[in-house]
Amino acid sequence: MKAVLFDAELKLANLPKPCFTGNESVIRLLKAGICNTDLEITRGYFGFKGVLGHEFVGVVEASKNTSLIGQRVVGEINSGCGHCEYCRKNLQRHCPDRTVLGILNRDGAFREYLTLPESNLHLVPDSVTDDEAVFVEPLAAACEILDQVEIEPDQRVAVLGDGKLGLLVTMVLNQSIRQLYLIGKHPEKMELARELGVETVEPGFIQKLSRSFDFVVEASGSPQGWNQALHLVKPRGTVVLKSTFHGQVAFNPAPIVVDEVTVIGSRCGRFEPALQLLRDKKVDPARLLQHSFPLGQALEAFELARQSGVLKVVLQSG
Amino acid sequence: MKAVLFDAELKLANLPKPCFTGNESVIRLLKAGICNTDLEITRGYFGFKGVLGHEFVGVVEASKNTSLIGQRVVGEINSGCGHCEYCRKNLQRHCPDRTVLGILNRDGAFREYLTLPESNLHLVPDSVTDDEAVFVEPLAAACEILDQVEIEPDQRVAVLGDGKLGLLVTMVLNQSIRQLYLIGKHPEKMELARELGVETVEPGFIQKLSRSFDFVVEASGSPQGWNQALHLVKPRGTVVLKSTFHGQVAFNPAPIVVDEVTVIGSRCGRFEPALQLLRDKKVDPARLLQHSFPLGQALEAFELARQSGVLKVVLQSG
Repeated sequence: MKAVLFDAELKLANLPKPCFTGNESVIRLLKAGICNTDLEITRGYFGFKGVLGHEFVGVVEASKNTSLIGQRVVGEINSGCGHCEYCRKNLQRHCPDRTVLGILNRDGAFREYLTLPESNLHLVPDSVTDDEAVFVEPLAAACEILDQVEIEPDQRVAVLGDGKLGLLVTMVLNQSIRQLYLIGKHPEKMELARELGVETVEPGFIQKLSRSFDFVVEASGSPQGWNQALHLVKPRGTVVLKSTFHGQVAFNPAPIVVDEVTVIGSRCGRFEPALQLLRDKKVDPARLLQHSFPLGQALEAFELARQSGVLKVVLQSG
Repeated sequence: MKAVLFDAELKLANLPKPCFTGNESVIRLLKAGICNTDLEITRGYFGFKGVLGHEFVGVVEASKNTSLIGQRVVGEINSGCGHCEYCRKNLQRHCPDRTVLGILNRDGAFREYLTLPESNLHLVPDSVTDDEAVFVEPLAAACEILDQVEIEPDQRVAVLGDGKLGLLVTMVLNQSIRQLYLIGKHPEKMELARELGVETVEPGFIQKLSRSFDFVVEASGSPQGWNQALHLVKPRGTVVLKSTFHGQVAFNPAPIVVDEVTVIGSRCGRFEPALQLLRDKKVDPARLLQHSFPLGQALEAFELARQSGVLKVVLQSG
């Protein structure tokens, strides 16, 4: 079967189809999204070697749970040991012995067939299209913010960065926050936010917005994001750190103390709230779909995904 | 009257005694402690010019509230505008127009007589000595941690830094935390912690303690403290940032996201819990008293306070 491998370089490979061994379910891929994390892996971060990809929708081909066979599913990407302090709290994504689909010790979704434990799978409602379902994983990461912090509807919230993650966060927060601002620089993405009724701010105005937001979600993926977020947040406010910028950032920690600011790192989220938003047609992430490529054209797909300003690039099986 | 001024350099001055104008209470100084913030001001941080000092105990000499006259008091150091969003939540310490005793737009306590609004004053119970009462302000800052975060008794907590603030934090947390560790390097301070039943750890062991604490309180005041705290904290754990290290620190923000770590800045606290701990004889901060000097020997007192490893240096009136 076709697969997209990273092993010092990104390449197409012909791998054996995974067998059903009685444990993990085997899933036939329908669509899989290219995430910034995939791009970072191809730059050598994470040290991962294997099949990439962790955002997908597919059809169960084999499973211990026969009622799943033939069903369309999405899958949580972390698989824990099942008995550590994190797994016991249903926080498998922090299990020290976890595997992570296409990121850590587990081959990913950019292949015609993949495997995951049955407990990771979620049925996709019929009313949700494949193009929507492929966004469940990053949409769940956006929803994670509301599992971590309580935002009052009239508090001022800024989302820093108008990339894929920033826009998904904007869509999610726009459900409940009245004073929501997206700070970004790409005209067509800012227009999309305005169509949702969200205020947009150009980065040139950041200096003037010192200490003016109760919450700042840093989703810029840029080295400037950390200090910009600390500049924007009010005393006693909260910075939610979403983007995994890799590299050294220099800053002065004293203002965090003086202003008693809270910084919360935020990564993957539960799939249920994301599926609920899609089922209820509350968000339309498929608007972020830029282009689809067959698996066999993955190298071209990655080339497009790496370009600045490009939204979601999807690989499809067949 | 004698006063200790900072204006480009630290000096003794003879200033007029403040008059009672009908507004702020006039307080005759008994004792005042030299804090690291005072030392930082003399290094040019904060840009403050005026009478230094914000940790004190004194006797009310004049006040609108005549029942206060002759009473021994300590005083909260922040005075807010009274009507902004922070003052309305009793968070005067974050009022954008606040004055701060001896730190921001308000002369401090290193003088024979000082003034503060009546609402800032707290009576000192008879059972609390002057040497204990002079610690109420920094002890309140230590208590602030428990106003900000909820720590379960069986969670592992590390205090990073065995200076005055680290030891006060250790004394406060030791009331409720069973697995408390002080990380420091001064043998006599570590011995003091051990006498309280607290585990002590040398900095050389920090590397081995990666991701092993639910809470890390950074009270080291050193540029290494930030990265050490992030190294020590567990996934989903919390770093409480207490020390105002001034200067640039370089770090990689990605682990905060991946491990969903929370960082909370923590500054001044309410005086009530600190006074309660002293009234109940639960903590004995006077053990941290290194030396007392008369106000007239303030320059010698500052010289001693600047030396590494020195604990609390106090100025006394008369």
